[in-house]
Amino acid sequence: MDVKIVEVGLRDGLQNEPVTLATEVKKELIERLFQSGIKHLEVTSFVHPKWIPQLSDADRLAAGLPRLPVTYRALVPNLRGLKRALDTRIDEYAVFLSASESHNRKNINKSIRDTIPVLREVVQLAHQHGKRVRGYVSTVFGCPYEGNVPVQNVVRICEQLLDMGVYEISLGDTIGVAAPLEVKHRLKDIMSAVPASKLAGHFHDTRGTGLANAYVCLEAGIYTLDTSFGGLGGCPYAPGAAGNLATEDLVYMLNRQGIDTGIDLDRLCETSLYVQKHLGKPLPSKMLQSYAAKKKECGGGNEDGTGGH
Amino acid sequence: MDVKIVEVGLRDGLQNEPVTLATEVKKELIERLFQSGIKHLEVTSFVHPKWIPQLSDADRLAAGLPRLPVTYRALVPNLRGLKRALDTRIDEYAVFLSASESHNRKNINKSIRDTIPVLREVVQLAHQHGKRVRGYVSTVFGCPYEGNVPVQNVVRICEQLLDMGVYEISLGDTIGVAAPLEVKHRLKDIMSAVPASKLAGHFHDTRGTGLANAYVCLEAGIYTLDTSFGGLGGCPYAPGAAGNLATEDLVYMLNRQGIDTGIDLDRLCETSLYVQKHLGKPLPSKMLQSYAAKKKECGGGNEDGTGGH
Repeated sequence: MDVKIVEVGLRDGLQNEPVTLATEVKKELIERLFQSGIKHLEVTSFVHPKWIPQLSDADRLAAGLPRLPVTYRALVPNLRGLKRALDTRIDEYAVFLSASESHNRKNINKSIRDTIPVLREVVQLAHQHGKRVRGYVSTVFGCPYEGNVPVQNVVRICEQLLDMGVYEISLGDTIGVAAPLEVKHRLKDIMSAVPASKLAGHFHDTRGTGLANAYVCLEAGIYTLDTSFGGLGGCPYAPGAAGNLATEDLVYMLNRQGIDTGIDLDRLCETSLYVQKHLGKPLPSKMLQSYAAKKKECGGGNEDGTGGH
Repeated sequence: MDVKIVEVGLRDGLQNEPVTLATEVKKELIERLFQSGIKHLEVTSFVHPKWIPQLSDADRLAAGLPRLPVTYRALVPNLRGLKRALDTRIDEYAVFLSASESHNRKNINKSIRDTIPVLREVVQLAHQHGKRVRGYVSTVFGCPYEGNVPVQNVVRICEQLLDMGVYEISLGDTIGVAAPLEVKHRLKDIMSAVPASKLAGHFHDTRGTGLANAYVCLEAGIYTLDTSFGGLGGCPYAPGAAGNLATEDLVYMLNRQGIDTGIDLDRLCETSLYVQKHLGKPLPSKMLQSYAAKKKECGGGNEDGTGGH
């Protein structure tokens, strides 16, 4: 089993952190992530710079990306964004929309119906430039405004994305509400329209369910997963809530299950400790916290030391 | 599906916290946990008081437990411990040993072989007093000294425990190393000797895998799970590493999956916030952190607010 980890910390993670990192720090992080074995990096988003101040250096970062044997990815909301991205070192683009009408309107300022042709144009022009495009669907498992999102709506949007030619669809639990059993059922419904090989799982760990949901993806045959190093991200209005599923937690689980991702867990944890310093707060990954705690104090073989059970 | 949650925070959680709580605070916590809907409470351990200072008030706490319609449980290592416990309001006892020789020796100061008759005496005397006994097996998924623990060793110990008459066996991932796929496989092997109805899952969330492992238990038909409110606990030599799987995280997942445990998640989170104050540090449950963050700042319906995907 070959699992592809798409590291989205520099985009989905950072856009939800209160501190904006300097472009040079981001480049340093990219180098370090590469040294840790990360091969797929989503680094920024070409939305209007005023929308997401943390990513307002998109053009400069993307034009000056370190030349490394990795795949650089970025979000492009429309033709304007794509045209900016085409001048940079980004290898692959991603278009995005929501499975729930109110979230889509809040996020993109358009109805879902009106968003589709905008994305189609992007995919067409990207293809003309020999670039492939991923499709992101947000609020697949729940919407902050509407609550439940009917799975038929998700399936219809997936079909429209496939029809416009995206090579992969990332299913986003944008607000981190999904639990594994519903993921299992929902994936089954979605996979009746989209083959597992074209799907990715994108989970937020807001309520601690991220890794369980990733496990369910693997069981369902979905082997592409989006994660953030350290578990970067979260809700900008709720400092302290967890962000994306942490890359460390996923890599630990995969290693333990005999799946080698080529990622060096210690180096990855060191990279997260480095970004922690810049953000001035501890990151939520439990694997990272365990690494940091052991580094600080746990000498010898005793990982337990409970005295009791 | 009826899921039984055994709240072990006052025992397994507190014994791994650097701060020792006053007996009166523990009683207040018990009242609050009961008000939250918790029905099964493991409250202390009758080991020698010098072993675990945090639980050295075992006799006083257990003799003065609030009279509530809950099941009070406590660990008893031997006949001496049981005799102390028999004078108290504890309803059920638990004996314990490890599946790995070195951990058992370090923890109980005996070989596994020499531990068995000690536990058998405890179970016999408890039964004579009309009390039932649970068996805990530690290091089921890995040992801090030996690493891998052969599953045959686990199965043999389970059979010995059943033979001495325990009504249930709790399988402990004492150091929080297990990943869900191995849990699935190992449970299958164990269930060839012990019916699922007599098994419980006891996971630590040291590396973030706790909830995924609990999910696998449910899928395997094991419906009794041990958790700590707030995710109390951890490694005493590594402050910052996570403790037991958090009750909040499990309850959120179960609720979302349509399983009503009778536990009020908000009240439970408030109880964890209360103990946080006494311990002087945030607890690791992501559901709790999300609750606390939302309570503080997230007004309105926007749980997302990403601006981007």
